[in-house]
Parts: sequence; structure tokens; C-alpha cells
Amino acid sequence: MKINRREFLGAGLAALAVEMSVPAAAKVSPPPRRRNVLLIVSDDHGYDLGCTGGKVRTPALDALAREGVLFTDAYASVSSCSSSRATLYTGLYSHTNGMYGLSHDVHNFSLLDDVKTLPWMLKQSGYATALVGKLHVKPEALLAYDAWLEPERPLVRDVAVMGHAAGRWMREQGDKPFFLTVAYSDPHRAGDVSNFGNTRDWPEVKRERYQPSDVVIPSHLPDLPGVRADLAEYYEAVSRMDTGLAILLHELRESGHEDDTLVIYLSDNGRPFPGAKDNLYYEGIHLPLIVRAPGALKRGLRNRGMVSWIDITPTILDWTGVTPPNGYHYLPLPGRSILPILGEADPKGWDEVFATHSFHEIDQYYPTRSLRTRKYSYFLNLKPELEVPIASDVALSPSWKAITATPGAKLGKRTLDAFHHRSAEELYDLTVDPDEVVNLAGDKKYAAVLADLRRQLDSWRTKTRDPWQKGVTDPFGRAR
Amino acid sequence: MKINRREFLGAGLAALAVEMSVPAAAKVSPPPRRRNVLLIVSDDHGYDLGCTGGKVRTPALDALAREGVLFTDAYASVSSCSSSRATLYTGLYSHTNGMYGLSHDVHNFSLLDDVKTLPWMLKQSGYATALVGKLHVKPEALLAYDAWLEPERPLVRDVAVMGHAAGRWMREQGDKPFFLTVAYSDPHRAGDVSNFGNTRDWPEVKRERYQPSDVVIPSHLPDLPGVRADLAEYYEAVSRMDTGLAILLHELRESGHEDDTLVIYLSDNGRPFPGAKDNLYYEGIHLPLIVRAPGALKRGLRNRGMVSWIDITPTILDWTGVTPPNGYHYLPLPGRSILPILGEADPKGWDEVFATHSFHEIDQYYPTRSLRTRKYSYFLNLKPELEVPIASDVALSPSWKAITATPGAKLGKRTLDAFHHRSAEELYDLTVDPDEVVNLAGDKKYAAVLADLRRQLDSWRTKTRDPWQKGVTDPFGRAR
Repeated sequence: MKINRREFLGAGLAALAVEMSVPAAAKVSPPPRRRNVLLIVSDDHGYDLGCTGGKVRTPALDALAREGVLFTDAYASVSSCSSSRATLYTGLYSHTNGMYGLSHDVHNFSLLDDVKTLPWMLKQSGYATALVGKLHVKPEALLAYDAWLEPERPLVRDVAVMGHAAGRWMREQGDKPFFLTVAYSDPHRAGDVSNFGNTRDWPEVKRERYQPSDVVIPSHLPDLPGVRADLAEYYEAVSRMDTGLAILLHELRESGHEDDTLVIYLSDNGRPFPGAKDNLYYEGIHLPLIVRAPGALKRGLRNRGMVSWIDITPTILDWTGVTPPNGYHYLPLPGRSILPILGEADPKGWDEVFATHSFHEIDQYYPTRSLRTRKYSYFLNLKPELEVPIASDVALSPSWKAITATPGAKLGKRTLDAFHHRSAEELYDLTVDPDEVVNLAGDKKYAAVLADLRRQLDSWRTKTRDPWQKGVTDPFGRAR
Repeated sequence: MKINRREFLGAGLAALAVEMSVPAAAKVSPPPRRRNVLLIVSDDHGYDLGCTGGKVRTPALDALAREGVLFTDAYASVSSCSSSRATLYTGLYSHTNGMYGLSHDVHNFSLLDDVKTLPWMLKQSGYATALVGKLHVKPEALLAYDAWLEPERPLVRDVAVMGHAAGRWMREQGDKPFFLTVAYSDPHRAGDVSNFGNTRDWPEVKRERYQPSDVVIPSHLPDLPGVRADLAEYYEAVSRMDTGLAILLHELRESGHEDDTLVIYLSDNGRPFPGAKDNLYYEGIHLPLIVRAPGALKRGLRNRGMVSWIDITPTILDWTGVTPPNGYHYLPLPGRSILPILGEADPKGWDEVFATHSFHEIDQYYPTRSLRTRKYSYFLNLKPELEVPIASDVALSPSWKAITATPGAKLGKRTLDAFHHRSAEELYDLTVDPDEVVNLAGDKKYAAVLADLRRQLDSWRTKTRDPWQKGVTDPFGRAR
């Protein structure tokens, strides 16, 4: 059987191509091809899956992981919603692409006008593009979606209608290749009494109720009744989102595109609890990433490469064979395609990730730049004189109320004081201190390590044109 | 002679209407009417005019002041370019309209999507709208200009071409009423060796050269040779802008619209020297405002009402008889029309101005809110733990280099340390301390005064929906 699209990269996929050289009559389904992309983005889903030892029930995610590749060391490059999505959709760090903080309402951050987004680039190459659900990136025009279906609405968590809208749209595209993003509002907090949209039934969703005793206390939280109850509600929202995923993937199969669509599942930032979301520490940026690529040789693989959300756009461009426009101001994109390493458990050369945070809400300024390797994490806090703010939804949470009402309560091993007041530099030895609480930046024994990480971070900031780095902005430059 | 447009407000103008009841044959020019608007915005022009005792030569501004009304106590509501222009063009404080800092390049601040600008409102009512020169407000679409002529370019200070483009455009409008904004780049610093674009001749401009001995040292600067030389270059740029104004006003007269066009001249923020521009102290926000209204009874008046740039949009709406759309989210506009007080030297009820600063460049965060009355100025610095930044163009200036190279040099009466490190609250008694250097916020004798100003400021922040005030942003609100 002739492979008539484009070359498969990588030994594993080439092997598959050989495997597929059988008489046409023996195979009923079309060969796996590179063609469509289904990018699924959940909202505030931490590394909480059934198949990774969590107590939350996520059968659809577990199944997807069995059919594809689960990355155990994947990271967002920022733990704030709009900034993270902007990075997903541009392949640029948030301090490069203009989305320095939240885009909605009075926060009003937006992409720089000359940024070319992933959907825009795919559209230029003939792809149909659509978004189902949450956008939270501005301006809409730069995203170039043909359709925006079921836009996010407060208190609405109708995952079924999202899946069906996605299915309808996919079928409507006929022979046209498509790039579809499905962005759930779950499991983000909501303004109802459960704090997670759990105060009613949702169509086609069997409610998964959890008891406080059912939850796992993450490393960044204390074991308090209020925290347990809060996590239990969060688990229900995760399970609801998982049900939505099952509906969506069923629609994909029914559309006939299961064998020619790259499926990527990930979350925008860490779980919506103190010490995770809105922080560049491990629990803020370490997130689920599952990739199911038709034709991939390895299924059910656990891939330990340190992959970043900066790599998602290059991956999708690689899959579709689309390239950014000539002379595009922001080339080279800083990330890399992960397709070549899909079949490897321990790919070489994937051992560090960078992250960059500037704002969450407009009045929540705490710029930090970080580098995480296998052994160390290093944080440069640009304004250490400031107090670290708490995202409003987290500040209003039952967990935060419980913590602040309990004298001596800590965020796991981190005191509240240490959380709010950080040094200009933080250095952690992850082999002995995975919770990132013992700051070695002042320890002479680590001076060489610190200097090296500091230099690497500085070099990365220059390469990625960090406006917070001296000399990057020109007071007499051409107004853009 | 029947006045067939709209009612003139105010006793002075009514008197004029009576005065105009003469046989048509005795008058050759058409009666003054409310119709067109010419808004002239200079860039970084401090309160430096010949007719107010300055040594800089500004014959056109002086003539305009003789023909109209010069406000001696007029203030911007912020001393940063894009924020100030955004306020001029919306009638909203910058913490309300979204323009929290500079709009260009990586700074990337913009108006909120649901803000209706002055040109947009006028256009809805049938006005032709155009901008000549500098915009520095985003997004362009919200400004709704029919034409943008001679956009600002680095190192270009061709004031003549701006004036002629304005004249051409005005004549092209025929019978259509027009709203024209002419925004000079002068006297903003430029990236040439003179730092003010003075290294070449400009068409139709006789170069006014100044010697360091020719200048007046403003209250916020030390008397150093480097500062004098820098001010001399600034004066030349001011004079060049003044020549441009003469050309522009001549074009207005030649167009036949001198008698039906409200002319407003003002500057966006304070002079581009340390301690002025980018500060809410007096020298940062106290700026020239000259208004020439056809039909005004008093000419050459000095008006001491404390007027704010927040009043400019209401004034122009009043002049044109245009009202904001029904149900406009940001009503009521916080400012007032100054047309009713044009003929008064000491209008009652105009004795305070508010100001609000959040950012200049994206990495220059220093949020301050202020209230200035006749007697006091009060400043609330929201993040006093931060060091006060210096705008990049000012930091690169010969003045700043001279100051920082001279041990013990001060910004007038203010030490560099006091400039960079401010208290959470500042209170100054302007009757004895117009330089705003003796902070009385900790002085028990002023406790009642402080409490009163603090309360007024807080109330104003609530009314104007300051996102930096607690409780203003809603984490579960509808995404805009």
C-alpha cells in the first residue's frame, strides 16, 4: 500500500509503513495518515488521572493513554490561563507573544499584532479551523477560526453539547483537512456553591460524586477537612470533563477520522488550589499530556521526555507539514516537534524546560523566570520586594479559607510566609527536595550550579526577547 | 440674524447672540457657530510658553492664548503618553479605559473592547474624523478615523507637512462637520545626537537655537551644564512645534473654518525630564491648555479653574451636541464640559483633579492614585516596596546622565533617594510646599486632612472602577 501523503518521520513510523505493505484486500480501514488535528485543552486540570495513581476516575483519559503516549514529565511554560493558551497557540513564550497575563475583562492583555498563530498558519495552508468552548486569548482575529462553537459561559459545564458540536463540525468539513480545538471549562472553579459547577446534572454525564475521604492530598496542600471537601468537588469536575472527552472521541470515531487525526490532550495550567495554579513550582506547571498519533508504533507508552507547551505548535506544524511564513519576525520558534520522540520512553536531549510568569490578573504582578532540569529548579524573581499574590478564584476557595483559618497550616512543606515572600533567586535540588522548599541559592556549595543556571536563563531570556531584560525595549523605536 | 444651529450656553455666549442681531449686510463673515473641532496634542510639552513667563519662544501659542482662553491650572490625569491620550479620546481615566500603560511595541496595552471613543461617537453623528501625526493608542479600529495622515515616524519632525495635510483634509470635507486631531511628535525626545530631532533643518521652520544660558531651570531639576544644554535642545523642539501650530492655524483660516471650529491646544504629559514626565507630581501633570471658541465673549483670558484632561471629551461632546450612545457601559462620564466656564477667571466648583498611573513601559510598574486640591496633594502608592522607575527616554537623556554623574545632585528639592523610594502615602501642603517634598502623611497635625483626602480618593476609585481596588474584578465573571 503506497503511502501517498508525506513521509513518516522516525524509525517507528517507518516500520509501520513497512508493516502496512499488505494487499489492499486484507485491510478494511484506510491507512493512518497525517492530516487532521484535534487539540483538547482542559482548564486547570492538574496531574490527576486514574492511570497515574490518582483516585479521581478518568476512564476516557486512561483509555487515550493506553492508545497513545502519556508524557510523565510534561510542563506548561506558565501557569496562568491566557498566557498558557497563548503559548499553545503560537509556539512562543508569553513574554514574547504579548500575552503577559489574563486577557478577559479589565485585565485586557493581548497577543502582539504581528504574531502569527497556529490556527492562522494552518488556515493559510488550506485547513478548516474551529474552536469549541473556551478561548481566553485576544484578539480573536489573530486566531483565525472559521467557527467558534459553544463559547464558554459562566456556570455552564455542558460537555456533551461541546462533543456533539465538535462531531457535527468535523463531519461538515468533508474532504478538507481540519484543525479543531476543544477547550473545556472543567475543571476550573465556578461561581456556584460547590465552586466547581457540580450543583446540577449535566446532559449525558453520570455524576461521579467523591467523598472527602476519597481524595489524595497533593504535595502542596495540608490535610484539612475543608481542603478534602474542595478536592472532592474538583474530582467531580475532572470526571465530568473526562466524560466529555469520551463523547468527543466517540464523535471523532463516528466521523471516520480516528485514523487520520492527531489527538493531543493537555491542560492549560495546574490545579486550582493554593500553591499550584499561578505558580511556576512543580505542581503549577507539571501537567497531563497525552498524544495519540495514528500510525504510531508504540501504544500505551510512558514517555519521560521533558516536554513543554512551547513544543505543541511545532509538533502540530510537523504533523500537518505546514511551515510558518517566510520572514516571520519570531522565527526560529523556540520549541521542537515531539513526533520524532513519540516512540521512546527516555528520549535524549529532552531534559529541561523554561517557564515565564509576569501577571495573572492585571493587579497581580509578580514576574518570575525559571529553568527546570532533571536535577534542579531555578527561579529568578524579578521583583522580590513584592508579595506573591493569590489568584482570585483560588483566594475565594474553600481550601484557602480552611488554610488561612488554621494557625500553622502550610502549603505542603511550604509555609505561607515563604509562599508570599520569596528571594530574588531560588535554587532547589530536586533529587532530595522535590517539593522545592529548601532554597540553596545562598549556599556556597551550590555556587557553581547557580551560576550555570543563572547564565542559561539569562541567555534564554535574550533569545526570547524578554521585555523585562535590560536593553530589550527601545524608547525611540518605530511604534508598532 | 437667526442662530439656526443650537443654543449657546452661558451668559457670555448669549450676550454674543444678542450682539449679533445686526442687519446681515453689515457683517461679511458667517456668525460663529458650533460645528467643527480641531484638537491639537503635543508630545511632552511642559508648561513652557513665552506668554507665561518662559524663555522659550512660542509666538503661535501666545497668539492663540490672546485669541482664546489660557488655563493656568490644567492637568493631565496621568503623565504617560498612551494613557493620557486614551483619556483625551474617551473621557475615562486610564484605569477605567484599559490603557494602563504604553500601547506601542512590546508594551502592548490597549483600550477595552467596549469603550466608545470620542471620534467614534462623533462619527456616529455624521462627523468626518481624521488624525494627523501621532496616534499611540490601540486598537486603531476603536478610534474610527476616516483618515490617518502623516503617521508619526522615528526622527521625523516635519511640522509643515502635517499642517498642510490638515488643511487639505479640512477643505476636502466640504459641508460635512469635522473633528480633526493634529498630534505632534515635538517636543518628545528623539534618537539623534541632539536628542530632540534638532540635527537638521525642517521645511518652513526657522530654527530657533537656544543657548544653555537662555533657559529657565524648572523646579524639578538641578542647575547643571548638562541639564541646561538639554533644556536648550528641548526649547528648540518646542519652538518648532509652535511654528507648526502657526502653519496649522493659518491653514484653518484659509479653509474658511476659523469661525466655526473649536480649537483646543494641550500636551499629553509633562516635559521629558527627570521628575516631570511619568510622575504625578505637579510638573508631570500641570500642562498648557488653550481653548479658542468662536463666539466666546472673553479673549485673552487667564482661567484658573482646575481642569482635567478627563473634561476634554465632555467639552467636545458639548460643543458638537453629540451624546454617548444609550446604555453605554461607562456612563456617566466622570468629567464635565468646560464651555460653561470659558468666560470666567475663577470659576466656582473647579478646585480638584484626580490622577492615576499604573505603568509606563511594560516592565515599569508603579501604580499610584492621586488627588490634588487647591491646598493639598495626596498620593496613594499601591506598591511602595517597589523602586520608582525612570522612563527609558528620560533615563537616556543628557540631563539624567548629568544628574547621576554629580554627587549630591537633586531633582530640584527632591533627593534621588526620595524620588525612587516613596511611602505608601504622600501628603503635601501646597501653600508652603509647592515642590511636594515635605511629606506630612505621618504628621498627626494633618491626620484629619489625610483621612479626608484618603476617603475622597477611595470613593473616586470605586466610582471609576479601579481594577486595583479590592473587589472590582470578578474571578467568575463573563469573559469579555
